[in-house]
Amino acid sequence: MPLNVIVQIKDEDKVMQGLRSVINLYNDLKDAVIEVVFHQSAIKALLKDSNFREIIEDLMSKGIIIVGCENSIKAQKIKEDSLISGIRIVTSGVGEIVRKQSEGWIYLVV
Amino acid sequence: MPLNVIVQIKDEDKVMQGLRSVINLYNDLKDAVIEVVFHQSAIKALLKDSNFREIIEDLMSKGIIIVGCENSIKAQKIKEDSLISGIRIVTSGVGEIVRKQSEGWIYLVV
Amino acid sequence: MPLNVIVQIKDEDKVMQGLRSVINLYNDLKDAVIEVVFHQSAIKALLKDSNFREIIEDLMSKGIIIVGCENSIKAQKIKEDSLISGIRIVTSGVGEIVRKQSEGWIYLVV
Repeated sequence: MPLNVIVQIKDEDKVMQGLRSVINLYNDLKDAVIEVVFHQSAIKALLKDSNFREIIEDLMSKGIIIVGCENSIKAQKIKEDSLISGIRIVTSGVGEIVRKQSEGWIYLVV
Repeated sequence: MPLNVIVQIKDEDKVMQGLRSVINLYNDLKDAVIEVVFHQSAIKALLKDSNFREIIEDLMSKGIIIVGCENSIKAQKIKEDSLISGIRIVTSGVGEIVRKQSEGWIYLVV
Repeated sequence: MPLNVIVQIKDEDKVMQGLRSVINLYNDLKDAVIEVVFHQSAIKALLKDSNFREIIEDLMSKGIIIVGCENSIKAQKIKEDSLISGIRIVTSGVGEIVRKQSEGWIYLVV
């Protein structure tokens, strides 16, 4: 049975190292289902004009699910149409992380 | 069966965003039992004269359990009577987090 | 049955407080098996000339397993022979953390 992993990125200043860890995880666990939740200040990484857009689009092309937290989007006064296409929005990033774990997903903070 | 969630706040400079995430979690998972452990430098948030006192007392009034780590209290040379009333003290915050998980609680770092 | 705990230290500037938490965990859960994974910028703590060498060697003498992430070693251009003796190297720190959890280990971020 493949592993399901729910990854949390919350700090804006830790996005680059977080994304590197996601790539390393993907390379190490080829069959895992990986979902990455961006919330708190890290939500800015999902903006179309973010420095991380290319990496994030590359992760999505590999089948990694990218999720943004609506609470954080509102707190940062971000317009949803300024976000990278293809990401999934959830009401609450932390609610998503807890729910996935309750369904057996493995938790990872990067 | 309601979810039980054990939340960790460890960094003094991340307390505000951590508390916002706890509020978002509470609003999203109405029936969950939520316990928030403050340890390392974040223990200072539990001082009576902390900027977060009002938010923390409001969380407690909602039934959220607030826990402080005695190891961190001693490391920061805090007197126990200078802490907000109603919080629970455990010997070790990390021990509490591990024990709760061993009893089936879901872990969340904010 | 003793608890198995997989501990993550990822940030260079949080190594000291992380190591203090590991010591507190050890003192609180005497019978637990504890493995500490150093990755991202925190990998530098495992250098022979690191300020943390004595503490890390003391942890190993207590039976705590110390693990370094090869991806992080390469990213930081560290030579493996400059690392403290007795640590275990894994291809991917995050892969190790996920795999251990899939085997029932409890996760802790410090």
